[in-house]
Amino acid sequence: MAFRRAALRLGAAAFVGGGAVAFSPHPSYFDPTGTYDTSRVLPVARADASGGMNTPNSETSNDPREKLVILGSGWGAVALVKNIDPNLYDVSVVSPRNFFLNTPLLPGVTVGTVEARSLIEPVRRLLPGKPGQSRFYEAAANAVDVRAKTVTCVDESEIKAANPGFTLSYDKLVVAIGAPPNTFNTPGVRRGVVNFLKEIDDARDVRRKLADLFETASLPGVSEEEQRRMLSVVVVGGGPTGVEFAAELHDFLRDDVPKLYPGLAEKARITVVQSADHILNTYDARISEYAESKFARDGIELVTNARVTEVRPNEASVMDKKTKKVTKIPFGVCVWSTGLGTHALARELKRQAGQNMRRRAIAVDKYLQVRGVRRTTGKPEMRGTVYALGDCADVKSKAATGTELLDRADELFALADADGNGTVDKDEFRAVMKSLEDKYPHLATFTKGGSDSRLTDIMDKFDVSKDAALNRTEFRAAMEEADALLTSHPSTAQVANQQGEFLARELNAQARAKKNGETVVYRPFEYTHLGSFANLGANKAALDLPGDFVSKGYGTMLLWYGVYFSNCVSWRNKFLVVGDWFKKSFWGRDSSRV
Amino acid sequence: MAFRRAALRLGAAAFVGGGAVAFSPHPSYFDPTGTYDTSRVLPVARADASGGMNTPNSETSNDPREKLVILGSGWGAVALVKNIDPNLYDVSVVSPRNFFLNTPLLPGVTVGTVEARSLIEPVRRLLPGKPGQSRFYEAAANAVDVRAKTVTCVDESEIKAANPGFTLSYDKLVVAIGAPPNTFNTPGVRRGVVNFLKEIDDARDVRRKLADLFETASLPGVSEEEQRRMLSVVVVGGGPTGVEFAAELHDFLRDDVPKLYPGLAEKARITVVQSADHILNTYDARISEYAESKFARDGIELVTNARVTEVRPNEASVMDKKTKKVTKIPFGVCVWSTGLGTHALARELKRQAGQNMRRRAIAVDKYLQVRGVRRTTGKPEMRGTVYALGDCADVKSKAATGTELLDRADELFALADADGNGTVDKDEFRAVMKSLEDKYPHLATFTKGGSDSRLTDIMDKFDVSKDAALNRTEFRAAMEEADALLTSHPSTAQVANQQGEFLARELNAQARAKKNGETVVYRPFEYTHLGSFANLGANKAALDLPGDFVSKGYGTMLLWYGVYFSNCVSWRNKFLVVGDWFKKSFWGRDSSRV
Repeated sequence: MAFRRAALRLGAAAFVGGGAVAFSPHPSYFDPTGTYDTSRVLPVARADASGGMNTPNSETSNDPREKLVILGSGWGAVALVKNIDPNLYDVSVVSPRNFFLNTPLLPGVTVGTVEARSLIEPVRRLLPGKPGQSRFYEAAANAVDVRAKTVTCVDESEIKAANPGFTLSYDKLVVAIGAPPNTFNTPGVRRGVVNFLKEIDDARDVRRKLADLFETASLPGVSEEEQRRMLSVVVVGGGPTGVEFAAELHDFLRDDVPKLYPGLAEKARITVVQSADHILNTYDARISEYAESKFARDGIELVTNARVTEVRPNEASVMDKKTKKVTKIPFGVCVWSTGLGTHALARELKRQAGQNMRRRAIAVDKYLQVRGVRRTTGKPEMRGTVYALGDCADVKSKAATGTELLDRADELFALADADGNGTVDKDEFRAVMKSLEDKYPHLATFTKGGSDSRLTDIMDKFDVSKDAALNRTEFRAAMEEADALLTSHPSTAQVANQQGEFLARELNAQARAKKNGETVVYRPFEYTHLGSFANLGANKAALDLPGDFVSKGYGTMLLWYGVYFSNCVSWRNKFLVVGDWFKKSFWGRDSSRV
Repeated sequence: MAFRRAALRLGAAAFVGGGAVAFSPHPSYFDPTGTYDTSRVLPVARADASGGMNTPNSETSNDPREKLVILGSGWGAVALVKNIDPNLYDVSVVSPRNFFLNTPLLPGVTVGTVEARSLIEPVRRLLPGKPGQSRFYEAAANAVDVRAKTVTCVDESEIKAANPGFTLSYDKLVVAIGAPPNTFNTPGVRRGVVNFLKEIDDARDVRRKLADLFETASLPGVSEEEQRRMLSVVVVGGGPTGVEFAAELHDFLRDDVPKLYPGLAEKARITVVQSADHILNTYDARISEYAESKFARDGIELVTNARVTEVRPNEASVMDKKTKKVTKIPFGVCVWSTGLGTHALARELKRQAGQNMRRRAIAVDKYLQVRGVRRTTGKPEMRGTVYALGDCADVKSKAATGTELLDRADELFALADADGNGTVDKDEFRAVMKSLEDKYPHLATFTKGGSDSRLTDIMDKFDVSKDAALNRTEFRAAMEEADALLTSHPSTAQVANQQGEFLARELNAQARAKKNGETVVYRPFEYTHLGSFANLGANKAALDLPGDFVSKGYGTMLLWYGVYFSNCVSWRNKFLVVGDWFKKSFWGRDSSRV
């Protein structure tokens, strides 16, 4: 057998293994020792030999750093990873997904406005420190023991090792595993029957499906009835994801389909089913109205105050919440985006911490520490060992610092009563509400961003004495009602990102304090709402800023481009996303079924 | 139920269907007539109404154009599609893949040097004429009737219509369906066990698999033996595809793996199994040698004169062709790229045309017309109705025009005998061989691109009289041996592309001739070999031009970039491919398991 061989050289890399061995019977695969030429082993390989690579972090010997284990690879986890100091912590990141995903741009992937690969960044490229200083494990954490301070993980990917499970011990654990889509146990709702829009593959499945539907609808002998069924798209959920998907799809139908699939665009139909009486109902009322009127102009059908009671392949049953009347809508694609469920590990952690299992998310205190860990373990030193953030966590309102208006009602009343006449009239009320909104985000919801009509309603409701002003008692009542509205932080990338950055600062500070023998100070997390965007398609967007600022239309879209550009996790992403926008505007979207 | 609706307006598109109908029970899906506002139907929609869209082309009424059906969406089909005149032909393209794929760049996709989406272009964007003037059907042609001049197709994609089959009639049929990979019925060789490198999904599967393997090999508790097994890559086939994949993979191991997966690069191993005694054996000998020495330097193992006799999951049995000794090579990935098989439809067509079923490809004459169609149908008017080109076709040597040297041996002898001394010495021989190479591509093979050593061998062999020159008889013998080497055109993108462009010119000319009542002239296809590239990685390439020109190294790589840039089927592709090269050189390759 003519057989040429040489050392396996990779740049300056080590001469290892197979290199010097006879081809057959390939001992080199089974004899890792014998054949090393250690004189030329790289630092990297040494780090490896010294157990860095394939021994769990728990076994890494004589490392002064505390072991920090981060579960997840989303906004919260990555914000933490990017800001943690690898010289202070021995960082191990565990996630079944080895890349970060820029979720807010995901709806665009479904029609090719932006490419899947442009929204992702390998977690390994985001790890702090030099190669090998921090670790990433592509696995799912399926059990945690808050007493023993260990996490058990298993490789759930296609290719598994002989023993796919392993256990990591931690000094500090951060749970940032996100939340699965919530199906509300609706019969028939599962992958394959509906499409979710949480992960990159979800978006690609929708894209492939759309291409397939349009191709099939273009074949000879397909009846118009069949075409209309195939090209009917039902969107369940009127939140940002559902709305932006509907908008992207409409742009695709308007910009690309007429050229690619002559005669089909007119047969397509988009129906958005929303349980509340408005879409984007977490936004300022004016934005909901703007979005609804634009959808009406675009011919996107809105079915509000309705719930999907069952989904069969190609047919959704929609029930009017008032009349209870059920209508069946045939569809080619049904995109399900109706909020968040609970991750199995989150449930497990809640159980161990003795939390209320009826609540969806992991309750954390204002320091983002999982509530109940100290109590159940009965060990005060457990303080600051387990954190949770992002979609899987819930900063309970009562816990968040000074978020309650009622606590400060009198003080606020004095503040509000500018003219000191003992009552707060509408203008005074508006003024104080505006001035407080940033500190108390829930006020934006309470006053509907300070919309005049809403303020009038509030005055009418609480001005019992009908003197066109609120006295101290009436003011307190108003504040109490506002507090009732006080909800957890919204489950958005913005919140998770702020929490991750906050926790990185905190943990770095804690480690430094310990190092210098100072006492560790815990500071509470405070959320600063920077506003909410909604991309409504056709280069129109809506922006809802704290306070009364609302912006709509083309200019807002430019702003949207800017903000999402700056949100990209890396310059690589920025380059790719802009490239995609450029590509789309020049050549339209790519209808290849890939 | 609060229910807003409006006409489904898409740009200026028609007001159709659901628009004005009551929501429930959704008659709009089932009543295509009632609700049209015909006053505003688009031209497109009219073309549709007039039966363009969803009636097979056979039924398109009173269209003066001949019906041209093109099967395939590869290099040959697309070259034809791009150059055919839609005013002369009613073009229908049928392919199970609705996009063109720039196959020569495919190996780069396996490691992310270039992105999958950058190599593809929707066929629909390449269709000639305005939207609706030509048609694309995403379906597989599974039967052809050369007598009735019909093709039967079926939708093989995930989503099918109630009746997924349809029949197209043609005046002219062009079969450009390519060829599946050839497994030589090797036990165990099938998708899932090995990976092929023909289609975009093949390359993506390899990429996902590599990411998964490296992630799994990075997990705690994985033995070094297991790591080495996972990171062993076996490449079966030493042709351009196999060689370029090995080179790309090596670049990934050298450039990216050390940063992403510390300590693993040294444990990876690439083994190329080649049945011949050299890799790239269709290239000039100097290029094979260059490639082999580079691979040796890189530590890529070459096993030549060996055949893979069986593949089990994670293990390939390799037999030395001489010693018959079998060696088992464990692997994480096995890429199989050992040449071409026969497409079912090609076999069916060969059968109908009464062709030799033992040969792989469809035999066509020098006009690219499928041989035997006229004879079997017994209808001379069947001339010029069925064509085949690209990998599925074989321009039989004996058929190609004047390709035989023996026919012109005496003439050539006179030409060669410059000094007219009645014999041809080595210099004269070299001179004439060079001068003929472009006309007779097989001479390049015969003289190994005119390499001196090879010419000496030839002289030695045929100079029976040992007078250091060839007399007429000896010269004839040499020419005869050269002709024996005369093979079909190689199965390359270059050949298919030239055939497609040629056929487009021919068909356009034929139609014009008919139009003007002139007699149709058939011209033969002649292949002009423009040279062969091989990308050897590390920004090194090799170029083999007709004649004696061979180029290697970095400069050649730049040339390679240039040529492959210009080969991109659209400016969109150019933009994307260059973007990818830019991205790679700045940020390295993306290891996300997507």
